[in-house]
Amino acid sequence: MDLTATTAQLASTVADLVRLLPTKMYDPVLAGVLITADRDGVLVRGTDRERGVRLRCAATVHEDGQVLVPAKPLAETLRALEAPQVRLVVEGARLAVRVPGGRFALPLLEADLHPGVAEPPARVGEVDGPEFAGLLSVVASVASRDDALPMLTGVRLRGGPGGPLSMVATDRYRLAIATLPWAGESEVDAMVPAALLVEAAKQAASAERVALHVDGDRAGLVWDDSAIVTSLLASTLPDERKLLPSTVDASVTVDADALAGAVRRVGLFSEGHAIVQLDLGDGEIRVHCGGQQVGEAEELVKAEITGGRPRPAYQLRYLSDALKAFAHRQVTLAIQPGRRGTMITDTASNSGGRRLQYLVVPILPQGG
Amino acid sequence: MDLTATTAQLASTVADLVRLLPTKMYDPVLAGVLITADRDGVLVRGTDRERGVRLRCAATVHEDGQVLVPAKPLAETLRALEAPQVRLVVEGARLAVRVPGGRFALPLLEADLHPGVAEPPARVGEVDGPEFAGLLSVVASVASRDDALPMLTGVRLRGGPGGPLSMVATDRYRLAIATLPWAGESEVDAMVPAALLVEAAKQAASAERVALHVDGDRAGLVWDDSAIVTSLLASTLPDERKLLPSTVDASVTVDADALAGAVRRVGLFSEGHAIVQLDLGDGEIRVHCGGQQVGEAEELVKAEITGGRPRPAYQLRYLSDALKAFAHRQVTLAIQPGRRGTMITDTASNSGGRRLQYLVVPILPQGG
Repeated sequence: MDLTATTAQLASTVADLVRLLPTKMYDPVLAGVLITADRDGVLVRGTDRERGVRLRCAATVHEDGQVLVPAKPLAETLRALEAPQVRLVVEGARLAVRVPGGRFALPLLEADLHPGVAEPPARVGEVDGPEFAGLLSVVASVASRDDALPMLTGVRLRGGPGGPLSMVATDRYRLAIATLPWAGESEVDAMVPAALLVEAAKQAASAERVALHVDGDRAGLVWDDSAIVTSLLASTLPDERKLLPSTVDASVTVDADALAGAVRRVGLFSEGHAIVQLDLGDGEIRVHCGGQQVGEAEELVKAEITGGRPRPAYQLRYLSDALKAFAHRQVTLAIQPGRRGTMITDTASNSGGRRLQYLVVPILPQGG
Repeated sequence: MDLTATTAQLASTVADLVRLLPTKMYDPVLAGVLITADRDGVLVRGTDRERGVRLRCAATVHEDGQVLVPAKPLAETLRALEAPQVRLVVEGARLAVRVPGGRFALPLLEADLHPGVAEPPARVGEVDGPEFAGLLSVVASVASRDDALPMLTGVRLRGGPGGPLSMVATDRYRLAIATLPWAGESEVDAMVPAALLVEAAKQAASAERVALHVDGDRAGLVWDDSAIVTSLLASTLPDERKLLPSTVDASVTVDADALAGAVRRVGLFSEGHAIVQLDLGDGEIRVHCGGQQVGEAEELVKAEITGGRPRPAYQLRYLSDALKAFAHRQVTLAIQPGRRGTMITDTASNSGGRRLQYLVVPILPQGG
């Protein structure tokens, strides 16, 4: 194998591959990257058996070939180089990374021992790359990081021909639902690991259109000649439509940034459980926090309020995260009685089929 | 007490104070900041008994007074505010931080229990603020962080009327000596804790001229109406002049950035002990690293070489740190035989009395 590539391009391709695989890999073969040089350029591939990644990079190939070398050392070496062009050439039992005046020789691993990288399953439809990545990052952020209940670590993707694609995730305290238009070709209902899906979507966001590939066991994103494939989670979420607000106590329309700013500042005075309370008044919300030890803080935020005058309290972080998802927009908070969720939506009406609904479960305020 | 200040100014003053005091303070009184409002503006002071900090900030004082409030919560509150002006006013047992629409009330601590903040000792001379801070940050960076040998955690400041001021620190593996012109008024020879001195000099670097205040027990930096005072270390360093090179094996003149870049890239291939070796050749240095597991790397760096052709080896980090101190400059490496130090200096001659000498102890290369 012998090829020349633009250093920055190859470095970022290998760095992306490393980012998409687990950081700790005990099997040295799986800690390797398969590099294949052919007339189309260079293909880098990696897997941890659960997920598979294939990324394409332009290169001038002097001699075809395939090698397996440690992925992270290769990524670090390429990132450190300052020369604009880099040559990768097999020299004996080494892959030499060559620039003028410098030679960096990585040991070749046994490519024959590599299990190979799974190909994507059947195509089910296509989405707009940046739009999909943007909404997905919000939805996936509410998923749990705790593997004890696997279904809470996933994003449920559901859609079909003629309808929108929906993405849902919850950790029981929060629930996010996004819907977006897509070119659906067949019915899909899959539970995809949230953490990987977000990273994958970030990569795919460089492409205008991204294809979704799903079967009963695996899901993948495919764009150009690149693909990321992962195993599905075994269990699925209950139907989220049952959780949507039915009895609304009060409805608040407010600037998301103004409320988020007040929550952030006032929240510095929260004691212990990090709880922030909103007292709904006439034309304004009083955001307050406090305790004997830390002192008290309050801010008034202008808002349009209809219905009752409840005083819901929230986990500081959950409310902040929710408002951040609506940055620079007007939001409507539909507050339900007691511990039933508060639904946050964009005040502006549904634009082009894109929609985000974010439910936050309040906590019962003391004496409330 | 009642005052109005520019939020950004007051926030940065209180943040500087917090940065200059230890992060963990178990005595709640010492975790407080003394705020004094008088006709000159506002003075914020803090101490951990070992060090004392006094910083001045402009303010419009409506009513004189002095309070003690928790320092870190005050710093965080001020930093979070977006309003351009902030009012600090005592309200009952609280200090209220007020902005339009917002009130943040911190509990008052018992100011009577505060031990007070030490005033600086006698003045011994004056330095250029930014120049002092720049050289000091290099010298202090070689000091040890390990309290087991206190003298290795300090910077020795020495000077007198008519001569330069010198600053020396070492951790036994590295030694840095800086000299700079100063307006010395009396003899000084003091061991100052390195970590605090660097932070203090950074603050003082905003002032053109900074006064040094030293007696047998304490040292301080004073500028405008601000001061940082610390206890001295009890033990001192041996005379560094004995350590300067006597038998030079080879002398190398090289671009510091070019050599540092090669060391950084090649160093990615160092195994275990993180050692990098320099082979001196004709007009170039071969920088190399490697091991069976990680592979090998080498780069050639252009250099002027006189004397022998030794092959010294160094701890990667020590050599990198040393070269970073001479960024964007030509350096001369005076290499001594065996384990005697390599002295790195600026190739350009002594400019205006400023000088940096950086000694790095090599390790014996395998088979060397």
